Amino acid sequence: MHPTGHIEVLEVTEPGSDVLTADAFRAAFRSHPAGVAVVTADPGGDPIAMTVSSLTSISASPPLMAFSASAQSSSTAALRRATSVVVHLLNAEQLWLAQLGATTGVDRFQDPTKWRRLPTGEPVFPDGGTWIRGEVVHRVEAGNAVIHVVKAIETNSSAESSSDASGVGPLVYHNRSWHVLSDASMI
Amino acid sequence: MHPTGHIEVLEVTEPGSDVLTADAFRAAFRSHPAGVAVVTADPGGDPIAMTVSSLTSISASPPLMAFSASAQSSSTAALRRATSVVVHLLNAEQLWLAQLGATTGVDRFQDPTKWRRLPTGEPVFPDGGTWIRGEVVHRVEAGNAVIHVVKAIETNSSAESSSDASGVGPLVYHNRSWHVLSDASMI
Repeated sequence: MHPTGHIEVLEVTEPGSDVLTADAFRAAFRSHPAGVAVVTADPGGDPIAMTVSSLTSISASPPLMAFSASAQSSSTAALRRATSVVVHLLNAEQLWLAQLGATTGVDRFQDPTKWRRLPTGEPVFPDGGTWIRGEVVHRVEAGNAVIHVVKAIETNSSAESSSDASGVGPLVYHNRSWHVLSDASMI
Repeated sequence: MHPTGHIEVLEVTEPGSDVLTADAFRAAFRSHPAGVAVVTADPGGDPIAMTVSSLTSISASPPLMAFSASAQSSSTAALRRATSVVVHLLNAEQLWLAQLGATTGVDRFQDPTKWRRLPTGEPVFPDGGTWIRGEVVHRVEAGNAVIHVVKAIETNSSAESSSDASGVGPLVYHNRSWHVLSDASMI
């Protein structure tokens, strides 16, 4: 096993006439909605919080998830050093948190009533949603982003609770808009 | 750069008391919705089509996307050998395709009116939605799944067209149900 923090660098040829342009790629992906997560960590120094629409479950046994973060993000340097993270799976009442983690130049930890630290040190925004704490077991530097693979250690959810049980639907990001799922959106 | 088809094996310790159980992990991820894609390929022999809820955009320049597929899936062995794939980003009118690609034991290519081959050989289901053809540039075997990183080569979408432009909202999978996004789900 790679030591935690190992980064594998995936070399991909520079964009050329043989691949989609960035504009065409983004346009195609506007057809593709995603759940919304906020990733927090504190590798020493200041805590970070970053909104991502790339979180996905990889494997249930062992419990692995992955997300990617742009190399441009101000939080990425700290995130690369983190051995553990907390991912928050956002519901519609946590739109403020999604927006907070996506806004540049703000102190995302300014309001001490909104977050606390877990006994293990990571910052957590406990306001109503599901979160999962995990250990970063692998990173792949791919193009302009870093894919982080995380082994899930603990969660505040139980088999009985979910965003549905709370009556608040999950948040979805699509084509630069926010949506909420409900019985009305079911087909 | 790794030769196409290289698989990196990520060794993760077996599940134990220090990680979430599979049930707890699945329960937590029930809070997390996802867009729906069908991945097709034909590495020689029979074509495959597989529904995934793990497709995500990684980087726009170079244009990279990733998805994971369970090692248990009947299509995974063929998918491991594929050098190129087509990902279909599904809208609500393509629920039949999502269900086709998720049903075991059926011939997903039985109806010749539903699909064709691209000049490059990959099967495509052209029925109304956006697709992207790409080259598999990296694989990570992680737990019980394989993460595939794909460089985008071509698409049937244009900067103007999208599932929204077609008037059909995108398909979302959440907590074992299908949803469609629309103006009514926007917040």
